[in-house]
Amino acid sequence: MAKKQTSAGIDIGGTNTVFGLVDSEGKILEEGNISTRHFSDITGFVYALYSGINEKYKRIQSDFELIGFGIGAPMGNINKGTIENAADLPWKGVIPLAELFHTHTDLPVVVTNDANAAAVGEMIYGGAKGMKNFVVITLGTGMGSGFVVDGKLVYGHDGFAGEIGHTSIKPGESGRVCGCGKKGCTETYVSATGLKRTLLKVMADSIEPSRLRKLSFDEIDARIIHDAALEGDHIAAEAFEYTGKMLGFRLADIVAHTNPEAIFLFGGLALAKDLIFEPAKRYMEENLLSIYRGKVKLLPSELNTRNAAVLGASSLVWSLKGKEN
Amino acid sequence: MAKKQTSAGIDIGGTNTVFGLVDSEGKILEEGNISTRHFSDITGFVYALYSGINEKYKRIQSDFELIGFGIGAPMGNINKGTIENAADLPWKGVIPLAELFHTHTDLPVVVTNDANAAAVGEMIYGGAKGMKNFVVITLGTGMGSGFVVDGKLVYGHDGFAGEIGHTSIKPGESGRVCGCGKKGCTETYVSATGLKRTLLKVMADSIEPSRLRKLSFDEIDARIIHDAALEGDHIAAEAFEYTGKMLGFRLADIVAHTNPEAIFLFGGLALAKDLIFEPAKRYMEENLLSIYRGKVKLLPSELNTRNAAVLGASSLVWSLKGKEN
Repeated sequence: MAKKQTSAGIDIGGTNTVFGLVDSEGKILEEGNISTRHFSDITGFVYALYSGINEKYKRIQSDFELIGFGIGAPMGNINKGTIENAADLPWKGVIPLAELFHTHTDLPVVVTNDANAAAVGEMIYGGAKGMKNFVVITLGTGMGSGFVVDGKLVYGHDGFAGEIGHTSIKPGESGRVCGCGKKGCTETYVSATGLKRTLLKVMADSIEPSRLRKLSFDEIDARIIHDAALEGDHIAAEAFEYTGKMLGFRLADIVAHTNPEAIFLFGGLALAKDLIFEPAKRYMEENLLSIYRGKVKLLPSELNTRNAAVLGASSLVWSLKGKEN
Repeated sequence: MAKKQTSAGIDIGGTNTVFGLVDSEGKILEEGNISTRHFSDITGFVYALYSGINEKYKRIQSDFELIGFGIGAPMGNINKGTIENAADLPWKGVIPLAELFHTHTDLPVVVTNDANAAAVGEMIYGGAKGMKNFVVITLGTGMGSGFVVDGKLVYGHDGFAGEIGHTSIKPGESGRVCGCGKKGCTETYVSATGLKRTLLKVMADSIEPSRLRKLSFDEIDARIIHDAALEGDHIAAEAFEYTGKMLGFRLADIVAHTNPEAIFLFGGLALAKDLIFEPAKRYMEENLLSIYRGKVKLLPSELNTRNAAVLGASSLVWSLKGKEN
């Protein structure tokens, strides 16, 4: 019997790197992880990662044939197979990641950022199957996005399309300071961190009691605000309302660029369901040009969240295969 | 000898409809126009337009073969070949323009809005030859845009991608009222009309003398402001500076969506050259995420301006041909 195929999905994060061997249906056959921080030297990291994957592969090699490596990484450049000046990773400058992988393997290696990987994952395994024009917005510590136009991921001329988190909510005004060095970037409002920052503003302006007043900025996270809002905490609810409002504004502008069929929300903040979806949808519709109103679906990502990044990364290899056919 | 090919380009405006027969190099062989306003009935309009083009075609028929009709029209939907609820045209609702043309001809008929036509024109005849990822911004009475990704015009799911004029400069604030019914749309700041509105604000805030103080709002146009600025009028110069600033903000956001190689400015306001390009470039660079800085070209359209709309429309047919090859 012919072997089935498997794709290796790798999600490189600042702390840990998670990987999995995935079949064409999006089922994770094997998984593992290594510490990212542990490796100040990129060559050692790639060797350890490749070896770790290979070890897992041996367990399924009798039934599956590995066809390639898909890698999601901060500042991953799909045009060049590089990671470029990623602030959160131990390796500085331009890292030729695909090239380093190719010292170990001749299989295809695709590198992109996690939001682009999530977009391809949604198209291959998730809710965007059969869709030609859609956008995936990732809402984690920061805010990212992947655009699909006419069935293909938009890379851009320099390989860095879709940096929605760094569009401006308040251009030229005294917006919130962003880690990128600019002010007023959308992700300073719309992300887990943005939600926290908004919570503090709401708390400062209001005299409503809230159990969150007992917690420090560092102790609070999106999950705690979420739980408080569900328990009827007005300050937490207002922070979500404002976050959804800013997201809705941004979504309306995104629609005016590429007129997608659907926008998927992916990542931690998207798990807050109606707390984020309801205001986001309301403000999006309110700010859409009339020709778009009532037409654009706002949907939760259908990728399993724990493994979503690995699934997204692995899907890059299948999309490559689609290209060749 | 084999005949050369010609494409009919048609630009439908609220007042007049201009057409031309164009060769594959972008040379206009024959041209003509009919009144748009004159025809309250779309069937009569299409008949008159088709007949007018056919008459011109007879003059060159011995040397050229007509291969199709490209039409730029407000609210032109490329997916459906329709004009949908265009406020400035005499015909209400959804007009099946391509279908009506096909009662007269079996040749391909492509309908899209003028900004999309301009983008394809730039790619076929103009400064975007050989570029795969670029954006054309049209700055006339309003503000439009056409996005090209991976060598193809972005249509969007509903055929209405690229309505940049209706993204928000000031979301949720008391921005300027837009003809679309929203507030704070970019085109209320960045367009010939936006420039005029800004001029009035500057004039109101300042006590500087200006010969423009002798003119009414209705008497002022972009050309007059342009001439005044060149003559050293501070108020006119400040109006351009502010317009360029708002444009620069918008351009930075556009780059964060599709990461183009270049952005072309097309239409009346773009003729103001440095008055608009200099501040637009400066504020764009200031607001770009660092990975994009210094990489995106801001260029004037290379389409001949008097015939640019006709050229753009005619190019739609050549791009169709490219698709078939």
